[in-house]
Amino acid sequence: MNTKIALAQVNFFVGDVDGNADKMVYYAGQARSEKAQLIVFSELALSGYPPEDLLFRESFHQKVKTALQRLVATSADIDIILGAPWLDNNAVYNALFYLSEGKILAYYAKQCLPNYGVFDEKRYFTPGDKACIVHRHDLAMGLVVCEDLWHSGPATQAFSAGADCLISINASPYDHYKPTQRLDILRQRQLEAPLPIIYVQSVGAQDECVFDGGSLVLNQKGDVILEAPYFKEGLSYIKCQGQKFTSLEKKITAVTEESLIYDALRFGVVDYAEKNNFHGALVGLSGGIDSALTLTLACDALGCDHVEAVLLPSRHTSVESMDLALEQVRLLGVKHSIFSIEPTYEALISTLGDRLSKDETDLPHQNVQARARGVLLMALANQTGKILLTTGNKSEMAVGYATLYGDMAGGFAVLKDVYKTWVYRLSRYRNKQQYAIPEKVITRAPSAELAPGQTDQDSLPPYDVLDRILEAYIEGEKSIADIAASGFASLDDIKRVIKMLYRAEYKRRQSAPGIKITTCAFGRERRYPISQGFV
Amino acid sequence: MNTKIALAQVNFFVGDVDGNADKMVYYAGQARSEKAQLIVFSELALSGYPPEDLLFRESFHQKVKTALQRLVATSADIDIILGAPWLDNNAVYNALFYLSEGKILAYYAKQCLPNYGVFDEKRYFTPGDKACIVHRHDLAMGLVVCEDLWHSGPATQAFSAGADCLISINASPYDHYKPTQRLDILRQRQLEAPLPIIYVQSVGAQDECVFDGGSLVLNQKGDVILEAPYFKEGLSYIKCQGQKFTSLEKKITAVTEESLIYDALRFGVVDYAEKNNFHGALVGLSGGIDSALTLTLACDALGCDHVEAVLLPSRHTSVESMDLALEQVRLLGVKHSIFSIEPTYEALISTLGDRLSKDETDLPHQNVQARARGVLLMALANQTGKILLTTGNKSEMAVGYATLYGDMAGGFAVLKDVYKTWVYRLSRYRNKQQYAIPEKVITRAPSAELAPGQTDQDSLPPYDVLDRILEAYIEGEKSIADIAASGFASLDDIKRVIKMLYRAEYKRRQSAPGIKITTCAFGRERRYPISQGFV
Repeated sequence: MNTKIALAQVNFFVGDVDGNADKMVYYAGQARSEKAQLIVFSELALSGYPPEDLLFRESFHQKVKTALQRLVATSADIDIILGAPWLDNNAVYNALFYLSEGKILAYYAKQCLPNYGVFDEKRYFTPGDKACIVHRHDLAMGLVVCEDLWHSGPATQAFSAGADCLISINASPYDHYKPTQRLDILRQRQLEAPLPIIYVQSVGAQDECVFDGGSLVLNQKGDVILEAPYFKEGLSYIKCQGQKFTSLEKKITAVTEESLIYDALRFGVVDYAEKNNFHGALVGLSGGIDSALTLTLACDALGCDHVEAVLLPSRHTSVESMDLALEQVRLLGVKHSIFSIEPTYEALISTLGDRLSKDETDLPHQNVQARARGVLLMALANQTGKILLTTGNKSEMAVGYATLYGDMAGGFAVLKDVYKTWVYRLSRYRNKQQYAIPEKVITRAPSAELAPGQTDQDSLPPYDVLDRILEAYIEGEKSIADIAASGFASLDDIKRVIKMLYRAEYKRRQSAPGIKITTCAFGRERRYPISQGFV
Repeated sequence: MNTKIALAQVNFFVGDVDGNADKMVYYAGQARSEKAQLIVFSELALSGYPPEDLLFRESFHQKVKTALQRLVATSADIDIILGAPWLDNNAVYNALFYLSEGKILAYYAKQCLPNYGVFDEKRYFTPGDKACIVHRHDLAMGLVVCEDLWHSGPATQAFSAGADCLISINASPYDHYKPTQRLDILRQRQLEAPLPIIYVQSVGAQDECVFDGGSLVLNQKGDVILEAPYFKEGLSYIKCQGQKFTSLEKKITAVTEESLIYDALRFGVVDYAEKNNFHGALVGLSGGIDSALTLTLACDALGCDHVEAVLLPSRHTSVESMDLALEQVRLLGVKHSIFSIEPTYEALISTLGDRLSKDETDLPHQNVQARARGVLLMALANQTGKILLTTGNKSEMAVGYATLYGDMAGGFAVLKDVYKTWVYRLSRYRNKQQYAIPEKVITRAPSAELAPGQTDQDSLPPYDVLDRILEAYIEGEKSIADIAASGFASLDDIKRVIKMLYRAEYKRRQSAPGIKITTCAFGRERRYPISQGFV
């Protein structure tokens, strides 16, 4: 028999159970009209991923149960695999349902529950312990959920139970290693359970996480016979005859690390804005590279017509910065406005009188300037209903080189998980597609321009050194001694940077959410105390 | 044989392993000089609780191992029970050590790992599975760690293994039900394992959690024969002859729900300031009850000499508000200063020109005022090195009745987990001890005074109704339908409030940390998505 299977890579919305069911019914119909016999949706498709503490609410589970009945009815016409949280006898499972001929044909509970990184699945779910093999369409499908394939157990278990292929449904948060790592893991599983694998990954962004799509089908030899597009909702089809799988899709265009990260960030902005009902964005544009890249991403995400660049010069803003900001505004064709912060700054310092230091290069003065900008930008955001995007990068967020309620003010921190050296790489990448960021913005020395003649390197090591220290310590979990041993930075510099990292935790705790693109993003993923005596 | 045991209720500091070891050596010496044969420290005493992701750092475990050796040496003179994280063979255990005669006599790994509420223990620890009975001083001590006694297994297991008493070491975050609940749980365990219990609880605050002390000893019949003071570091002693335990302490003074909550908040401020090197605090004082209670708590915590009240009037500030604020300043004898926000507000609106609505009662105008205050207060905080305390209560944080970067600006949110109705109760309680909050502040209608004639009740249900809705939904996890069924509020009001609750998540995500006093505090304990389609 010849079977056609649809891999449904869909952007589900956490909590919007009815809307998610609507989408599934729609795509099931579409797959049916393409003569598919089975459609496969991703992990926790009905609830969206991750539903977090919504899983503690009885009324949430009621919605899921009602919506599942609709999908059961839909399965009269086409078999459906989907993920849903399942409340049963006071326990909640991260479940997979196989629906067929208007009935629940099979049910599987995820066995390996991730409880590291951004994941809290042991907070919510009870693990299953049984394999689930469904015999349909001349196939013995071994069904698993996401993390199950990151460990040895479930694949081998399904293989032993007679599976002749594996179908894995996933909601796997993107980081820049993930696409490669995912493929490695699948091939590692095939060493233990030599079966073709259908790997359906969700797509869409949810607060700090972005799901990248790129669903895969591997034949028994580990060749990728289908790779669905990244960051794009839609169906992909394969045909199978017994264990012989054939892709019905064209080869997709090649992606690079830069293109994927850029798209992850862009997609993160799109979804955060859409899911939170913002119809546009504001960006404070300084003439520096962070705000230049943020503005470009905002335009690429929401369309230039929905974006406004706001220039907020002070006495310390150089002519060059203004010129470069205005040049970029012209390049992008984006609306802009200019507000001097001087009257507000003057009012603030005259109000504070002798309570503020007389030296206007002092930190309190710098912060007052940054916060005057924050208030002006937020007023525009409140008035227009647009979201204010913050522009700080991961290197700055790490060492606290940012002003709370100043440049940190805003609803979404686009570059929060992007190291400064990556800000440069992404800017160059974007310019290669189409010139959008004035070259000089990329090549000039970075400065916060909060004091005369200031540059970032006055108080920080060069960014290439800083980023290597940070990445080794944060993502690499290396010790100060280990980092010093690799020799690219002095022990003093490393100690100073790590001290700054710990001391800035209180700022990060009040920062806007931003898209995770590394293996250890600030936010839900990295949980350090504010009060600590370790460093 | 007659044995004297010291219960060591100590304020350990997360990450400060050497400092924590110093404290243990000090208290062991003190107990020894009081002729005690055994001193018992709390859960994860060496690392502080909770160490969070520090547990992922090899160098952190190295420090713990080195420090444990010091305690082992100290045990030449006195037996020591202590908690420490223990890295062994790539697994980390939440461990208990029994040190005696300069050796590790016994080792126990916590079996029940909490992974709910504020707890993430399954993120870090591997559970143990064995009982640990130590035979010393004519006792067969069954040793357990915290959550172990909240379930049936470990106590029964120790009893079956021959224990004739239980010693439990704890780091149990306070909430206002905890003191009663703890005693209930211990007595429940005694039904299954009829043994005397020595329950050592830590004391001190760590970011959002406060540990209340109040260590207990129960005899076999469940009578409390010793209750150590709440919120106070120190040693308490019992004597035992076989299973017969006798307290060597005086009966402590009675506590009430109000006194414990008040002390929890006060203690939270003390420890947050101390552990983060702030030598004083600023409070923006409005003449309203939230800032009045916050100021009083700050003075009680840090001493009036280290606190400054800042009055920031605008055109909408009533004479009564100013008078009441000044009256309270006099009552407390605290330093104050006054800064009009008018020049800053004028500068901001003139800068924004026609980009801001002309109607100054509009929300953007209200936010601009709140943020002008935020900038002025933060400038004073930066200049003085004092911490700015925010004054918003839980009811406001729940529905988003607060301005990001405005009244939400600050390092610590003292009343973040205190419902408005509790703000009233605590204010009355404090006034009964000593009059500190002008009566009129308590009795007048609450108003944000950001627009003419505004009161909170213009946009919110009365606080007693609001708080019942919120408490039922947040702590009670009841559905909207269930709350409506109890009849104290209209379905429309409930729906409106719950919608506000979900919509304000983005604000809470950027709020300062504050002390947890309920069973579901905003912060690490309550994990809801910002983007959601559920409500």
